[in-house]
Amino acid sequence: MQSKLIHEESGKRTFAVILQTGDETVRCLQNFAIRERLGGAQLTAIGAFSTATLAFFDFGTKQYRPIPIAEQTEVASLVGDVAVGLDGKPSVHVHAVLGRRDGTALAGHLLEGRVRPTLEIIVTESPTHLCKVRDPESGLALIRV
Amino acid sequence: MQSKLIHEESGKRTFAVILQTGDETVRCLQNFAIRERLGGAQLTAIGAFSTATLAFFDFGTKQYRPIPIAEQTEVASLVGDVAVGLDGKPSVHVHAVLGRRDGTALAGHLLEGRVRPTLEIIVTESPTHLCKVRDPESGLALIRV
Amino acid sequence: MQSKLIHEESGKRTFAVILQTGDETVRCLQNFAIRERLGGAQLTAIGAFSTATLAFFDFGTKQYRPIPIAEQTEVASLVGDVAVGLDGKPSVHVHAVLGRRDGTALAGHLLEGRVRPTLEIIVTESPTHLCKVRDPESGLALIRV
Repeated sequence: MQSKLIHEESGKRTFAVILQTGDETVRCLQNFAIRERLGGAQLTAIGAFSTATLAFFDFGTKQYRPIPIAEQTEVASLVGDVAVGLDGKPSVHVHAVLGRRDGTALAGHLLEGRVRPTLEIIVTESPTHLCKVRDPESGLALIRV
Repeated sequence: MQSKLIHEESGKRTFAVILQTGDETVRCLQNFAIRERLGGAQLTAIGAFSTATLAFFDFGTKQYRPIPIAEQTEVASLVGDVAVGLDGKPSVHVHAVLGRRDGTALAGHLLEGRVRPTLEIIVTESPTHLCKVRDPESGLALIRV
Repeated sequence: MQSKLIHEESGKRTFAVILQTGDETVRCLQNFAIRERLGGAQLTAIGAFSTATLAFFDFGTKQYRPIPIAEQTEVASLVGDVAVGLDGKPSVHVHAVLGRRDGTALAGHLLEGRVRPTLEIIVTESPTHLCKVRDPESGLALIRV
């Protein structure tokens, strides 16, 4: 993982975060958010994965159902945000759309994405923190403002 | 619908708009744009819908063909903009990519999206207004600058 | 292609770039990046294409496999960036998710997208340049920071 501060003004920083072959996306973003003490941010990215695990939140079980993707895919869209989680630490939330070899698309919550050969991420900080609270209906930690 | 101004400088505001279970996305964004008098903005979001209606613009009939989605989906990507419509009021235009339980993806123009349990939207204002005019070919109101 | 500077501060410009029927997306964005001397930028867009060519990078051949899309599609998401290429000129990299008439989705690297009737693009400049170098594994020019 490489990163670079590409803009800063009035407490709002913008970073380029560049992942390389072998990097795991969610872990790298989580580590980056902790290191830079992000209390609020949004991010978008494009690139490609060698393997990934998407997920679908099942209201019946109140659990994420993992969807393993055991093939190289184009990351056609990766959109996410960072907020302060229930433990007071930065919490990264990322969704992705993946393109297969034949052009068909897969989409969902991103649990894991192994990069190959690159993922180009732009992270834009929010100077105001966003905080998560426990949602009684789903059991998930969700942003409330 | 909850919203919070998270950044402001030289007339450019950034908002977090958080929708909760039962909120309808397009109506909430339209109301938000009117309330905040947005004459130009872009937005991105992630979250999930209990039901939705996507649409495809059919050049034969010059109408949107509705595509009802009667199942819970992950909102893998929601991208949109706000401009001044033909009636002088803010006009919201949103496209979405939805992930189904098996990870396959649906995509199109968003007519309606019923939130469950959350939709986390970041709205970035443009200090310069964007204005729509009637496009003779399609009959649609499109941004011209 | 129409474009308008909608915001500028401390060397960071934001543009609305509006494409119309018949415009080819990648060529227009490439020309725009050269004209505005963009050394770093990110972009998002929504709209529709009459035809397009997506692509999947094949690690076996180290070539992009073209995926022709010979039908009208909604551009549900277009995400991209601009960096300084190996030749010292701006290099545009764009991925897209397209929605078909029945709502199913296609996704990949965008080689070509013929606009019909509109593509509404917001381009946000990075005051710091992003530069590409040759990646030995894939043979691609990738951003390194």
